[in-house]
Amino acid sequence: MKALKERILKDGLCLEGGILKVDNFVNHQIDGTLMMEIAKEFVRRFEGTRIDKVLTVESSGIAPAIMVANLLGVPMLFAKKKVPSTMTGILKSEVFSFTKSRSYNICISEEFLKEGEKCLFIDDFLANGNAANGMLDLAAQAGAEIVGMGFIIEKAFQKGSDMLREKGVNVESLAIIKSLDNCTIELCE
Amino acid sequence: MKALKERILKDGLCLEGGILKVDNFVNHQIDGTLMMEIAKEFVRRFEGTRIDKVLTVESSGIAPAIMVANLLGVPMLFAKKKVPSTMTGILKSEVFSFTKSRSYNICISEEFLKEGEKCLFIDDFLANGNAANGMLDLAAQAGAEIVGMGFIIEKAFQKGSDMLREKGVNVESLAIIKSLDNCTIELCE
Repeated sequence: MKALKERILKDGLCLEGGILKVDNFVNHQIDGTLMMEIAKEFVRRFEGTRIDKVLTVESSGIAPAIMVANLLGVPMLFAKKKVPSTMTGILKSEVFSFTKSRSYNICISEEFLKEGEKCLFIDDFLANGNAANGMLDLAAQAGAEIVGMGFIIEKAFQKGSDMLREKGVNVESLAIIKSLDNCTIELCE
Repeated sequence: MKALKERILKDGLCLEGGILKVDNFVNHQIDGTLMMEIAKEFVRRFEGTRIDKVLTVESSGIAPAIMVANLLGVPMLFAKKKVPSTMTGILKSEVFSFTKSRSYNICISEEFLKEGEKCLFIDDFLANGNAANGMLDLAAQAGAEIVGMGFIIEKAFQKGSDMLREKGVNVESLAIIKSLDNCTIELCE
């Protein structure tokens, strides 16, 4: 996606340790116009696939996921990283975060994910694919199916993409980072 | 807002202790179509007001805020409840949560909120107004101005609304809960 790639090169910051900082347009301050274009591109990429629900994980996945859900006319469900006191009947899965070097649970209320539902998972980043894996686990617990996963930015030099594709997941990433070596952003064509 | 009020009466659940649970269409599973109508209504309510940026707090405010930002063609900035390791130059404010009986910090990167910026704060609930107050504090620290606050649901029997209006904030709530006594949802006209 051309506009996204140009924006990453213009406004993305590359930090030590292979970290790409895009918090001025993706995951802290968000460009609403670009995010709508991103949502439309996701819809285009998964055209022809039956989608009953859009799934994501709080917080950075919510903006693209709600826009995709609105375009498709289906509900969006976001997994929580903390269990609210009012939530009962929970499905949960443990996720390890490399960025934060610790594990956390993602959880959903079982009443909102049902057997046979076809789901599209949307998130901002695909790196090692741990959040995505946790969502596959939640869907399996519910008997629902992840029919596709869409990521705004994929880090090709980390193992998430291969891992998901080996599991047969239909993965679409709108910008693919080839390398962040020497604090330089190199995108795949 | 008629569609929202009807939905609250149809799908909202009233729990002990004055808690209204709307997690099947507002803050866990989200109805994308209704959320877009909510966003359009916020835009209509603040028509004629100069808005440079939409502000919210993760996570439940993100969905309505990004839709409002997209409709207005301005950026959205969401305050974080945890400071990411990659974030520097932080403005923070302490917020007490009555629901969770504990304090937490909300923070933003100072580079994204500038002196003189006119901001619209959007959130899912207005109860005691603590998150809203924290955002007023962040804006004051940045020299920015909150020109309005829009809430999907206001609890009129809690003190947030009066507190904000006494401070001169232009508050718009799309559905106002008069009472949750006896686990019954009573809406204002």
